[in-house]
Amino acid sequence: MRHTISILVENKFGVLTRVAGLFSGRGYNIDTLNVAPTDQAQTSRMTVVTRGDDATLEQIVKQLNKLPEVLEVRDFAADQYVDRELVMVKVSVNSGSRAEVMQMTDIFRAKIVDVQPKTLTIEITGNESKIEKFLVLMKTFGILDLTRTGKVALPRK
Amino acid sequence: MRHTISILVENKFGVLTRVAGLFSGRGYNIDTLNVAPTDQAQTSRMTVVTRGDDATLEQIVKQLNKLPEVLEVRDFAADQYVDRELVMVKVSVNSGSRAEVMQMTDIFRAKIVDVQPKTLTIEITGNESKIEKFLVLMKTFGILDLTRTGKVALPRK
Repeated sequence: MRHTISILVENKFGVLTRVAGLFSGRGYNIDTLNVAPTDQAQTSRMTVVTRGDDATLEQIVKQLNKLPEVLEVRDFAADQYVDRELVMVKVSVNSGSRAEVMQMTDIFRAKIVDVQPKTLTIEITGNESKIEKFLVLMKTFGILDLTRTGKVALPRK
Repeated sequence: MRHTISILVENKFGVLTRVAGLFSGRGYNIDTLNVAPTDQAQTSRMTVVTRGDDATLEQIVKQLNKLPEVLEVRDFAADQYVDRELVMVKVSVNSGSRAEVMQMTDIFRAKIVDVQPKTLTIEITGNESKIEKFLVLMKTFGILDLTRTGKVALPRK
């Protein structure tokens, strides 16, 4: 099963490697991971999207909670949450296809962030299914480069 | 000096911990990091924002290039690139302040992704300075929760 786990950590040396090590050490694959400071200078939040069996994950969450630098662990599998991801994609265009790519960008409420004679770089945010649909469309024009942030999530309540 | 480093890696076990270990092992602080699959199923792209002296970073880049799972390293310090980050923030509102928060969301071309009686959850993308300005404004209303993806970047050319 797929889980989205949000981990609030102290900004201390080596926390990232220790947390990532807990997942890989137990054979859990990390689909995406990100870490960045919160609005409090001394803490960062990591979001990990991972898959594997529930019993092992429960063990990982327990071990996370035991790390002194870990302040809070939320497993969003069961809870109600909002999740979003940001993807930047560079698409091949020519004078004939540019307008079409721009129309699709518009329909998906994505944004063009750079224009070159033969490329458009587009920023899109959304949940996984929206982004996947957009990328399938862009593939027909030719994806030259792509970078994605991985998911972030916040509880609704 | 601040660097944005983009690393294309094979989707192999433990690559993340190995790469993160290279930075922390040399005393380099990671400001933000993210890793997610590319459009090729067998590769992922990591983006690391880091700071420290240039000579040490050069060493780290050299060592990254030596790892067999590392396919490409781009240091965006010198190059022209587009960078974006996604932040989700939950802001405290009441019947008096909701309209004001909505106006600011509009001005910053941000999006409201969830509404509760006493909160608004907002998604904003942009470069660092735009996002910082928005967060300073939101602080006056009260930030209850915040999560950010860290920067992703693509070369313009």
